[in-house]
Amino acid sequence: AAFLVAPLQAADPLPSWNDGTTKQSIVDFVNKVTEEGSGDFVPVAERIAVFDNDGTLWSENPLPFQVIFAAAEIKRLLPEHPEWNDNAAVQAFIKSDVAALTANHNKGLLEVLALTHAGMSTDAYDQRVKDWLATAEHPRWKKPYSQCVYQPMIELLEYLRANDFQTWIVSGGGLSFMRVLSEQTYGIPPQQVIGSHGQATFEMKDGVPTLTKTLETVFVDDKAGKPAGIYQFIGRRPIAAFGNSDGDQAMLEYTTIDNPRPSFGMIIHHTDAEREYAYDAKPKSSGKLITALEAAPTHGWTVVDMKKDWETVLAE
Amino acid sequence: AAFLVAPLQAADPLPSWNDGTTKQSIVDFVNKVTEEGSGDFVPVAERIAVFDNDGTLWSENPLPFQVIFAAAEIKRLLPEHPEWNDNAAVQAFIKSDVAALTANHNKGLLEVLALTHAGMSTDAYDQRVKDWLATAEHPRWKKPYSQCVYQPMIELLEYLRANDFQTWIVSGGGLSFMRVLSEQTYGIPPQQVIGSHGQATFEMKDGVPTLTKTLETVFVDDKAGKPAGIYQFIGRRPIAAFGNSDGDQAMLEYTTIDNPRPSFGMIIHHTDAEREYAYDAKPKSSGKLITALEAAPTHGWTVVDMKKDWETVLAE
Ligand SMILES: [Ca+2]
Ligand SMILES: [Ca+2]
Repeated sequence: AAFLVAPLQAADPLPSWNDGTTKQSIVDFVNKVTEEGSGDFVPVAERIAVFDNDGTLWSENPLPFQVIFAAAEIKRLLPEHPEWNDNAAVQAFIKSDVAALTANHNKGLLEVLALTHAGMSTDAYDQRVKDWLATAEHPRWKKPYSQCVYQPMIELLEYLRANDFQTWIVSGGGLSFMRVLSEQTYGIPPQQVIGSHGQATFEMKDGVPTLTKTLETVFVDDKAGKPAGIYQFIGRRPIAAFGNSDGDQAMLEYTTIDNPRPSFGMIIHHTDAEREYAYDAKPKSSGKLITALEAAPTHGWTVVDMKKDWETVLAE
Repeated sequence: AAFLVAPLQAADPLPSWNDGTTKQSIVDFVNKVTEEGSGDFVPVAERIAVFDNDGTLWSENPLPFQVIFAAAEIKRLLPEHPEWNDNAAVQAFIKSDVAALTANHNKGLLEVLALTHAGMSTDAYDQRVKDWLATAEHPRWKKPYSQCVYQPMIELLEYLRANDFQTWIVSGGGLSFMRVLSEQTYGIPPQQVIGSHGQATFEMKDGVPTLTKTLETVFVDDKAGKPAGIYQFIGRRPIAAFGNSDGDQAMLEYTTIDNPRPSFGMIIHHTDAEREYAYDAKPKSSGKLITALEAAPTHGWTVVDMKKDWETVLAE
């Protein structure tokens, strides 16, 4: 009667996670908050899970992908802008000179962002991102950036949604940039993406409704900006938070400390130079992880050891 | 066999709407976009409907309810603030002197907002709104403000959701204020509310995650701010928009003009002094309606004649 019993065993919803305490902590939490009648039960409306993006859902090396997009845009637009040949920020970009770009509180980076992420209609911007995603390849993995995502995290997103969680992105990256790919790549609709952004403006232009991207009143969705962004966009405290750097610490604290509901915090520790990258205190680009890693045991945050806990890293 | 046939007839989802072209325009639109295989079919993910709040979902007279809340807060806190006896804005509030409050680009109103809507934790603010909702009564209808909502609009929200629309509030009112009541009153969760807001700040205070309300970088979700707010929070164009004043015109334009999807726009015209209030060009408080009403025929927006189209006005 084996064939009668087999279908009753649920398939493993997290096949890319190796068995162990890390995987078990996720499953235990989900079982706990979804068990009706238990004291830990959380109503569906409050099952909010928030995910950092760069280094948590997809890779952030050799540079955050949005920075690579900006560099590609600069190269593409350069022939129309001879004045950029005398622009230090633009030149640093073309040479991928990270030190020059991030010096002086990211002055060069912000200058290039202004040239590539503002002053056009939101539709025109979206099309530029789509065009880039359709043609650009990751230098190491030789495939589109939208495929350089972590298979275990894709499974985790689906597992949480199957248990009636609402999954959100809460990233320091650009709100508009991520929205172009969030639905297809992560199953996360645009209205569940929170990110850094300037205030877009609206006007009727020759009878056509037109939204224009600006860098006015920029909101930086990083560090303390993450819980502030969650409050602004969601207005409800998450019960699960996933990140990979000190920039996620405030979001993890907001989610897990003094929360009247059961809560879950997780940090992805990049320990796998062979299959992905290995970094924490001294990352090559973004993703510095020192204080959040130190605070993890105190607050009961689960730390993913990528090399040990992930059976697969990149989605195929 | 009548009893066998009767249950097969769908119950009217909009019983508080009188039969006629207004009601029919809603039903026709919903049928059109939900009919699979038709050229007008809109996928579920794109069925976004946006609603103004004051004067569209609930009454805005004798003053917008949030203003009445602010006045109540001033009265409640006055004993602790003897300095307010010399404050002109506070005194105008106590006397319900609308002219004085709205003079000079709402200077007095904003001053009182700063005293009643900022400088406290978000939890403390929410509790204040809850306390007020639990005790205050509308001066005319003698019932809680959260019950001074339009029954036809409650039915419309439910009807749209039953057809897999996601319903959003897009109001000039305060984001945090509306969120306290949106879920229970309208079935709209906090993450589907867009409103005016200052940027909240986050910090760990004596080990406790704390969000504080401020009036920094205030976003005014009115007029052109409505489509800008929709872009910021939703990132997707609505296919249906409902409002009652010129402040909703940009949102109606954004929703219905040059939209590749079929779309629907509706204006609630307050024509019923007996059961509610009658106003348009010269409202007693908020809700001025001139240009949007003029533009309605051009853009095919349905205009609700409250007196004629609504069988019931207030929810019981
Ligand atoms: Ca990150
Ligand atoms: Ca209104």
